[in-house]
Amino acid sequence: MERIRYDYETFAKDLHALADSIDERFDAIVAIARGGMTMAHMLGEYWGVRNVYVINAIGYEDTKKLGMPRIFNLPDLSECRNVLVVDDIADSGDTLLAVMEKLKSNYPDVSFKTATLFYKTDAKFQPDYKFKKAEGWIDFFWNEDLKRYNAPTIR
Amino acid sequence: MERIRYDYETFAKDLHALADSIDERFDAIVAIARGGMTMAHMLGEYWGVRNVYVINAIGYEDTKKLGMPRIFNLPDLSECRNVLVVDDIADSGDTLLAVMEKLKSNYPDVSFKTATLFYKTDAKFQPDYKFKKAEGWIDFFWNEDLKRYNAPTIR
Repeated sequence: MERIRYDYETFAKDLHALADSIDERFDAIVAIARGGMTMAHMLGEYWGVRNVYVINAIGYEDTKKLGMPRIFNLPDLSECRNVLVVDDIADSGDTLLAVMEKLKSNYPDVSFKTATLFYKTDAKFQPDYKFKKAEGWIDFFWNEDLKRYNAPTIR
Repeated sequence: MERIRYDYETFAKDLHALADSIDERFDAIVAIARGGMTMAHMLGEYWGVRNVYVINAIGYEDTKKLGMPRIFNLPDLSECRNVLVVDDIADSGDTLLAVMEKLKSNYPDVSFKTATLFYKTDAKFQPDYKFKKAEGWIDFFWNEDLKRYNAPTIR
């Protein structure tokens, strides 16, 4: 599979474009950890949204079940009306599907929207806002950049 | 006051150096939102720590009280033994002080350490791990970079 290096400069340009394609305002942003954390941080600063939260999702790796991830650490959204949920990529769509199901059942009165930078056309969950079709495997800078300072011998 | 632009490349180098100065391993990383979120995201990926959480701290702005921030959305750390709490800067130290007080009183059996990139020598709370003395005002890239793509006319 093709591997694409996704560096910080490209990310910042893309995130700006994604942000400016969103013509709503939100009183909270929820990142799906870990993938959505840097996005949510920067969107919060850009839009002046102080209520930036995280929700944790970890995929089951040792079960024969449907592969639905475990969702935990739900933020308190009881004071919120419009919430944007962000993640880096809608890949299979399983994580977003499970997160949105959990959030909507816990907060039926909150209006939720979703945004990702990347998406796959066959993802089971298509975000409301998305930026680039993912072809191949994406090496995000947050996954790669600290490693590149290590000496080649200990790589 | 002098303003220092703190760009992504410098941050990545500094965070790598900070990370490699820490000779312990943690089973969870907790970011103080929003400032610690990008750091926590990248440290989690670098160290292979999947349990990356966020805690929210918002300073009171309309009260005569001591100015201690409100701490909320505590993550579930009941399964954790060693936890690293990260923030961008120990400025007055009030946020870290309030966060650590809350975390320690809720999880008396967890061993907590703290890390920030920047610190002031007169901060009331000095982190266990810290990297650079802050002189003046720091414009972090996560605060500035999306704005710089905006047309000058709408700045």
